Amino acid sequence: MPKRMLLNAFSMNCVSHIQQGMWVRDDTRQLEYTQLDPWVELAKILEKGCFDALFLADVVGVYDTYLGGPETSIIHGMQIPANDPASLVPAMAHATENLGFAFTSSVLQTHPFSFARQVSTLDHLTKGRVGWNIVTSYLPNAGANFGLGGLPSHDDRYDLAEEYIDVTYKLWEGSWEDGAVLRDTDRGIYADPAKIHQINHVGKHFEVAGPHLSEPSPQRTPLLFQAGSSNRGRQFAAKHAECVFIVETRESLSRAENVISDIRSQTTSYGRRPEDVLFFQGVSPVVGGTEAEAKAKEKEYIEQFSTEGSLAHLSGSVGVDLGAIDLDEPLETIDSQAMRGFVKSLIESAPDKTRTFRDLIRTRLAGQFLTGAPEQIADALQDWQNLGVNGFNLVYSITPGTFVDFIDSVVPILQKRSVMQREYTPGPLRQKVFGDPKLPARHPGAAYRRG
Amino acid sequence: MPKRMLLNAFSMNCVSHIQQGMWVRDDTRQLEYTQLDPWVELAKILEKGCFDALFLADVVGVYDTYLGGPETSIIHGMQIPANDPASLVPAMAHATENLGFAFTSSVLQTHPFSFARQVSTLDHLTKGRVGWNIVTSYLPNAGANFGLGGLPSHDDRYDLAEEYIDVTYKLWEGSWEDGAVLRDTDRGIYADPAKIHQINHVGKHFEVAGPHLSEPSPQRTPLLFQAGSSNRGRQFAAKHAECVFIVETRESLSRAENVISDIRSQTTSYGRRPEDVLFFQGVSPVVGGTEAEAKAKEKEYIEQFSTEGSLAHLSGSVGVDLGAIDLDEPLETIDSQAMRGFVKSLIESAPDKTRTFRDLIRTRLAGQFLTGAPEQIADALQDWQNLGVNGFNLVYSITPGTFVDFIDSVVPILQKRSVMQREYTPGPLRQKVFGDPKLPARHPGAAYRRG
Repeated sequence: MPKRMLLNAFSMNCVSHIQQGMWVRDDTRQLEYTQLDPWVELAKILEKGCFDALFLADVVGVYDTYLGGPETSIIHGMQIPANDPASLVPAMAHATENLGFAFTSSVLQTHPFSFARQVSTLDHLTKGRVGWNIVTSYLPNAGANFGLGGLPSHDDRYDLAEEYIDVTYKLWEGSWEDGAVLRDTDRGIYADPAKIHQINHVGKHFEVAGPHLSEPSPQRTPLLFQAGSSNRGRQFAAKHAECVFIVETRESLSRAENVISDIRSQTTSYGRRPEDVLFFQGVSPVVGGTEAEAKAKEKEYIEQFSTEGSLAHLSGSVGVDLGAIDLDEPLETIDSQAMRGFVKSLIESAPDKTRTFRDLIRTRLAGQFLTGAPEQIADALQDWQNLGVNGFNLVYSITPGTFVDFIDSVVPILQKRSVMQREYTPGPLRQKVFGDPKLPARHPGAAYRRG
Repeated sequence: MPKRMLLNAFSMNCVSHIQQGMWVRDDTRQLEYTQLDPWVELAKILEKGCFDALFLADVVGVYDTYLGGPETSIIHGMQIPANDPASLVPAMAHATENLGFAFTSSVLQTHPFSFARQVSTLDHLTKGRVGWNIVTSYLPNAGANFGLGGLPSHDDRYDLAEEYIDVTYKLWEGSWEDGAVLRDTDRGIYADPAKIHQINHVGKHFEVAGPHLSEPSPQRTPLLFQAGSSNRGRQFAAKHAECVFIVETRESLSRAENVISDIRSQTTSYGRRPEDVLFFQGVSPVVGGTEAEAKAKEKEYIEQFSTEGSLAHLSGSVGVDLGAIDLDEPLETIDSQAMRGFVKSLIESAPDKTRTFRDLIRTRLAGQFLTGAPEQIADALQDWQNLGVNGFNLVYSITPGTFVDFIDSVVPILQKRSVMQREYTPGPLRQKVFGDPKLPARHPGAAYRRG
């Protein structure tokens, strides 16, 4: 029996998410991101295609590293505007029954008492289909938007995240015992006060009295996603995450010491099991009826890429202003020794040093694509599975087109090979993914349960 | 030409909102508050009935004044659980075209940078149908949930509210100029960076860099609701509010010096006009085919009242533990001199001092009802209009039954009398209510506009 392959669609409540420059096309609905209809349509498409979830990215600041300002990001609609992702969920949930909704929320942006209530509300309204992608933010502007001056240090952000998630566990798992809600209409008793507790959290960053204002939702704690790849991020994932989003190469995952084996091996020090964490690789499928058709489509997308928009994205992500390098300079004339880590290794990894920096960037962008006929895509995804990946976050080039193509042509093959589900397991998102709607007792969040 | 009467339905994302004890009935959907269907159904009913908006109350703490703890509130489901109201809006908006959605958010609960983005997102998704009920919270537990120890003083909360709303104005009105968004697909230019500004707010409570992450929404600033009745609250309303929610008696509104004339007269000191603020009186209609039928229904509701649940509500609202008084004690034996303001005046106002405190409370509760045949209700509402009220927040006894009854029987009369709209004005909520989708130039929020 083959292992089930999990599939999420990766999107963001914005004009231009990962592949910069595509929003101008007639065959994408990115310009309609402010309307409910395209999101509801997308959710229905994904549910028809038996996807596990829609995974919504987010940022709470503007990318302003490239050329020392936000101008390039603004011109290219590159994750600015960036609207609130959670607000999309209720309308999509009402139009579907099984699709999950994982949305990103930074520990910088919302007080954990309010956030926990919002998540509980959404978990109720969706009948348990909510996931939380825990992020600590990496954009300096995000820190400046929340009165933190610049961005707190990486380790300080993870310390904050540890306390933040503890507060939410206390509210979700510890405040209302099982059996607290009676709904006794004969005696007029809604709930039993003896089973509802203040949390009285007192920490370095937060003091929260409680009780939680929401009664327990189907999952209590939402399905926990995370994407940190630093040492501290991996440690956090090993302790808390149930689904980890990775963007790796086949080479990096082929090494004995890779991110999956590293995180899995660390789980045991937190009392968890290696199989408690599932890994989702980001892929950008470009499917055609034939390989040639797919390649032609890929070529068209590559020609449409906005190099500047992509550099603004990349510069903000790695924290280095790539605008400092002349795009049309051959790599061999760039003094890579003078560059910091990421750029240095990028330049040194290029096979042909006579090419320009622009060529290098565009080759790197093009390298994101997984292009081919449906059978080839299915084969490639199964290859990834054999490297230990449990599922995929599918990045769109056009939306919903990329997902429609994938669902129409690749999903039936994966289903025929018994790799992908043909119908949904009933119940909340965690039940569909792990077989149980609640956190396992060995998860650190479960330690706060009472009664 | 009669003045248009505005109508909102008043509800809350909880089991039991204003009229305690009703949730046990078979003919109310209060127990289904965690599901989307009853909310979507309610929105459709209200839109069919040409209501202006659904007004959603909220609290971010538990009522724990009565008998010194939250037990009574919990037992009666009295505003605990209390789920997030904003999460209901997108699904209801997708099922309607014209109904407005005003939701409550306290200045204690969400950082203004995140809140402003959430509101802009909702204003986009609803095509401009969002209102914000600005509250400063009055429950000590709310303060304790946000690390403030107890609740900050009344004036400190209003100082915070002034700064909070300034931050949101800067983001909504000042960050993106009109014309900043180009959506130029030919040149690949989404927006013009020269017309998008950081706000660089530095205040006592917040430092917020910006720019706002959302492009301008149909209304920019949501329609602003407020309900403060203290001197400071009235001053805040005169400066900022466009719609003020009041719960007055006919007597208090008949006085020359009443809340409406007071707030209206204060508007001019902020450069606004008296007609820039509309007043909504809270009423609990009980409609029957005949007056006798209505009275019978009212009697049934009064018998179902939970006195304890109501006392928990009232104690928290006024900040006095009414549990200190024996419910079955005759008023004449209560030492009202020893009681603080609210209770003292409550007891002293009772006409018959041989009745018990329980009788007094239940009479007070029953006094909330506006009971009668449809014509009588319509007459009474027009009487309120003649006292200067612009519209009503209708409190339900059962939901959606109270609204259904009102829409089926009273709305047609009001429409026939040309008092109520028969169809909606196109456009955003503020356009429907005030004729313009944006804040008037004389509103203090408009002072932050640029370009």
